[in-house]
Amino acid sequence: MDKTYRQILKWGDKHEQAITPMMIEVLKEKLGVTDTDFETKYLSGQQEIKLEKKSALKQEQLDFIKNIVGEENILTDDFSRANFSYGKFYAELLKLRLNEIPNPPDIVVSPKNDDNIIKLVAYCNSHNIPIIPIGGQSSVTGALQTPNGGIALDLTKHLNKVLKINELNKSVTVQAGIYGPAFEEELNKKGYTCGHFPQSFEFSTVGGWLAAKGAGQASTGYGKIDDMVLSIKAITPAGIIETKEFPKTAQGWDIFPLFIGSEGTLGIITEVTMKVHNFMPENTSFASFIFKSFEDATTAMRTIIQSECGLPHLFRISDPSESDIAFKTKGFDNTFQDKFLKMFGYLPGKRCLMFVAVEGQKEYTKLVVKNCKKIAKKYGAMSIGQGPVKKWLEQRYSSAYLREPLMDAGIMTDTLETSVTWENMLKVWDSAHKYVSLRPKTVLMIHISHVYENGANLYFTFLSPMKKGEEKDDFIHFHKGLIETIIENGGSLSHHHGVGRVLAPWMEKQLGKTSIQAMQALKNHFDPNNIMNSGGTLGLK
Amino acid sequence: MDKTYRQILKWGDKHEQAITPMMIEVLKEKLGVTDTDFETKYLSGQQEIKLEKKSALKQEQLDFIKNIVGEENILTDDFSRANFSYGKFYAELLKLRLNEIPNPPDIVVSPKNDDNIIKLVAYCNSHNIPIIPIGGQSSVTGALQTPNGGIALDLTKHLNKVLKINELNKSVTVQAGIYGPAFEEELNKKGYTCGHFPQSFEFSTVGGWLAAKGAGQASTGYGKIDDMVLSIKAITPAGIIETKEFPKTAQGWDIFPLFIGSEGTLGIITEVTMKVHNFMPENTSFASFIFKSFEDATTAMRTIIQSECGLPHLFRISDPSESDIAFKTKGFDNTFQDKFLKMFGYLPGKRCLMFVAVEGQKEYTKLVVKNCKKIAKKYGAMSIGQGPVKKWLEQRYSSAYLREPLMDAGIMTDTLETSVTWENMLKVWDSAHKYVSLRPKTVLMIHISHVYENGANLYFTFLSPMKKGEEKDDFIHFHKGLIETIIENGGSLSHHHGVGRVLAPWMEKQLGKTSIQAMQALKNHFDPNNIMNSGGTLGLK
Repeated sequence: MDKTYRQILKWGDKHEQAITPMMIEVLKEKLGVTDTDFETKYLSGQQEIKLEKKSALKQEQLDFIKNIVGEENILTDDFSRANFSYGKFYAELLKLRLNEIPNPPDIVVSPKNDDNIIKLVAYCNSHNIPIIPIGGQSSVTGALQTPNGGIALDLTKHLNKVLKINELNKSVTVQAGIYGPAFEEELNKKGYTCGHFPQSFEFSTVGGWLAAKGAGQASTGYGKIDDMVLSIKAITPAGIIETKEFPKTAQGWDIFPLFIGSEGTLGIITEVTMKVHNFMPENTSFASFIFKSFEDATTAMRTIIQSECGLPHLFRISDPSESDIAFKTKGFDNTFQDKFLKMFGYLPGKRCLMFVAVEGQKEYTKLVVKNCKKIAKKYGAMSIGQGPVKKWLEQRYSSAYLREPLMDAGIMTDTLETSVTWENMLKVWDSAHKYVSLRPKTVLMIHISHVYENGANLYFTFLSPMKKGEEKDDFIHFHKGLIETIIENGGSLSHHHGVGRVLAPWMEKQLGKTSIQAMQALKNHFDPNNIMNSGGTLGLK
Repeated sequence: MDKTYRQILKWGDKHEQAITPMMIEVLKEKLGVTDTDFETKYLSGQQEIKLEKKSALKQEQLDFIKNIVGEENILTDDFSRANFSYGKFYAELLKLRLNEIPNPPDIVVSPKNDDNIIKLVAYCNSHNIPIIPIGGQSSVTGALQTPNGGIALDLTKHLNKVLKINELNKSVTVQAGIYGPAFEEELNKKGYTCGHFPQSFEFSTVGGWLAAKGAGQASTGYGKIDDMVLSIKAITPAGIIETKEFPKTAQGWDIFPLFIGSEGTLGIITEVTMKVHNFMPENTSFASFIFKSFEDATTAMRTIIQSECGLPHLFRISDPSESDIAFKTKGFDNTFQDKFLKMFGYLPGKRCLMFVAVEGQKEYTKLVVKNCKKIAKKYGAMSIGQGPVKKWLEQRYSSAYLREPLMDAGIMTDTLETSVTWENMLKVWDSAHKYVSLRPKTVLMIHISHVYENGANLYFTFLSPMKKGEEKDDFIHFHKGLIETIIENGGSLSHHHGVGRVLAPWMEKQLGKTSIQAMQALKNHFDPNNIMNSGGTLGLK
């Protein structure tokens, strides 16, 4: 394996994916990039990694750690330290391309078991050594940065087992470091599914899902990760939290939810007990629709989710911008079907796609889809069959691979996401488009993918040519403006990516001083020496 | 109005309800009470109230409070102070009958608005005057006791308005002091229902529902109160928490859920934004079943809730003991139908009732009931039509009135409740019956009324003759043993009554030291001078 920056900045299994010719045409048209941009790799990151900062650990500290986990479970070489310096936030990938790793962790440690972690936490707490719990490293919020060095605590090497599937309680107890596919495979064998399929599924862990408070693509039916968790085990400097699996309690306020969204700031989640669902893919019912406008589509979506006739599991709308690009890159434009749609008033620049998939008992899934169809029709939709949503599902995890060839072509691309009530939905959607339209040659695609009775998320993907030589500052400035546009118009800071260090500066304004002070008080209690993912995560000191 | 202890110990609208002749026969048979017991009122509490403890407030403090809320909004007479000394816990009712009110509040204050509360909290915080937020006073956990005196802060007089019904977001913003029926009436007018119907519905408030983390009779479909809340406003000594109504966020761990189940220990909840549901009672589908055993009934219930075919809203099982008493008191025993049931193997002492009601769109409610029928049949149930569940619904709030005539007849009666996974369900159920069977002439009825994929609640109602002259100690001893039986066999301390001061002694053991320390840290942050419902609530200092 080559030990270059490029190796680290790649997504997932590290294969390189090409941009399709049709997509290249769209990029040329929309962003003004040229064929030349696709011929060489801009800021390719192919240099071998050399870190300037040496490990700050003293020999005795290193020996102590080695003694706990064993020599085979520590890594101190430059490549390994670099590999645990960042997540997958665009600005981090840019820094890797620019060979900038000013603050790597001092060491990568893979504990063998909970007991190792208890000992490490006690030692680090008394020696003020930072600890950053690490799962699949797919964070896009700067949550995995190590501004103060310390230990990158890799949970994936050993803490990756399914401990118990409880068929009576329909629950599973699993170690936090297991990756999505391994977890799902074990559940499928017993007739269950975890129901949690974030886009990062293949390269994210159960612990990471909790830490960042993630949501999967079927969250409208199954809920976010916070709706799935029944109990946890977490190791903190203030002791071990080990909650019990009760269905619901009134034993004061619950403690385990504090760790969901804690992003490593309170302690290390090592075990999770979660609900599971019946794995019955043969029962899934599908529907795809096209609407004449985003307003019609969101009104139909709101009406469906508020109709009290069961819930879709996958439930998405691509806004006109995203729908148009989907049509173009799939070669749909100017086909017979496209002309037919236009004839009936489903026009480019206005039309948008809705996808539905419902899981559960056969009769139930059919009923929910029937209800969706009835309501979609009422709001002017044309039903376009099962094909489009099934095709979408086939490539559900692939788009993360595109970031690399896009950046190779000098294209800035990143995502943001928010949650918003129905009342503010169109306002946030519209203001985001207005903001992005001020930047020339820039595309903003928005979709809704997690739906609730009182609102939904909005997911923003933007593409624009990099301002070469000023890539970082240009991005930071543009990105900041979009964040502020979203929150000023009534969106939350995040629906499921989390906060990390990137969104931290807006936390106090967004939550209010009393709430952030309460969070800080709790942080101080669990982590009095501020060793747990310290350095600004969540806006905490 | 008479100003006696009896006036205070009565439930709800203070009418006196008689025990039916059929119920008297059952009580005579099971508890060994006699007709004489029903002729006079034991410990009737008809004495006029005289408090020994004078108000501890200084004149200047009284003047300050009067100045904030106005003279018409304070009460300092003995009856009023007595009236806010207790909730409706059996041992509290017993104390009222014994004319024991050693620790009344110093004053009852009805703030006119949030601003009044902000001023009161600031003043009390700097003068170390305890504050106990008061809603409908239906607590059965000692949560409303005032061991340190202070202000009983009555939210029901002024803070009882629906502030906004948001039809787009399908949500309502309401002041915490509104009673259930007034709240529901306003929602019904707009075509909505709150979906939260605890047995105390008529005499409990929205703020109380949150504070005690309650559950309504339709919770299997609509969730517990913690599933309904979208945002809150709470006034604490450390400042005002005012969260925003987002569908879901990943902005760190959420702060507003900390107040759900806080039982007044962190601050005063003044406003709540909640989900509402479509009010479509004409669509409700009903079913009632009888099973041959509790095992069969719970297996069917578990299978239904885990079948992924929608959810019943009301979903109950009465165990054989409760079912038998229901049959006897309704005059069903030895009827033709009873003989018919026995012939088919549904035998007294074993058979049990299941009730189902499903709300939502007509086709949905029919499908869910159809699924329940199919599964119930598989586990040997006989379908007994819509009548029994509809009759049960007609009297859904009435049983709380029975406590008074039962206690008048010298009968000890109280309830406990727990949540438990399916794995431990029969163990807790069986061990509770075994424990109670050790006490002679004692009846324990158990039902399940809130159902989840991984378990359900168990609700215990016990009746036994009072040990006259030793009523309190006898009760405390028996009650303690039942609590310990429940938790030792895997039940939680509470599913929806809350903890208060009665269950507080078990909190540390139940949650673990690390969790209770975290709760205490948060309490110390929000309420550094320990003025908020201080004196042991939730096991906090």
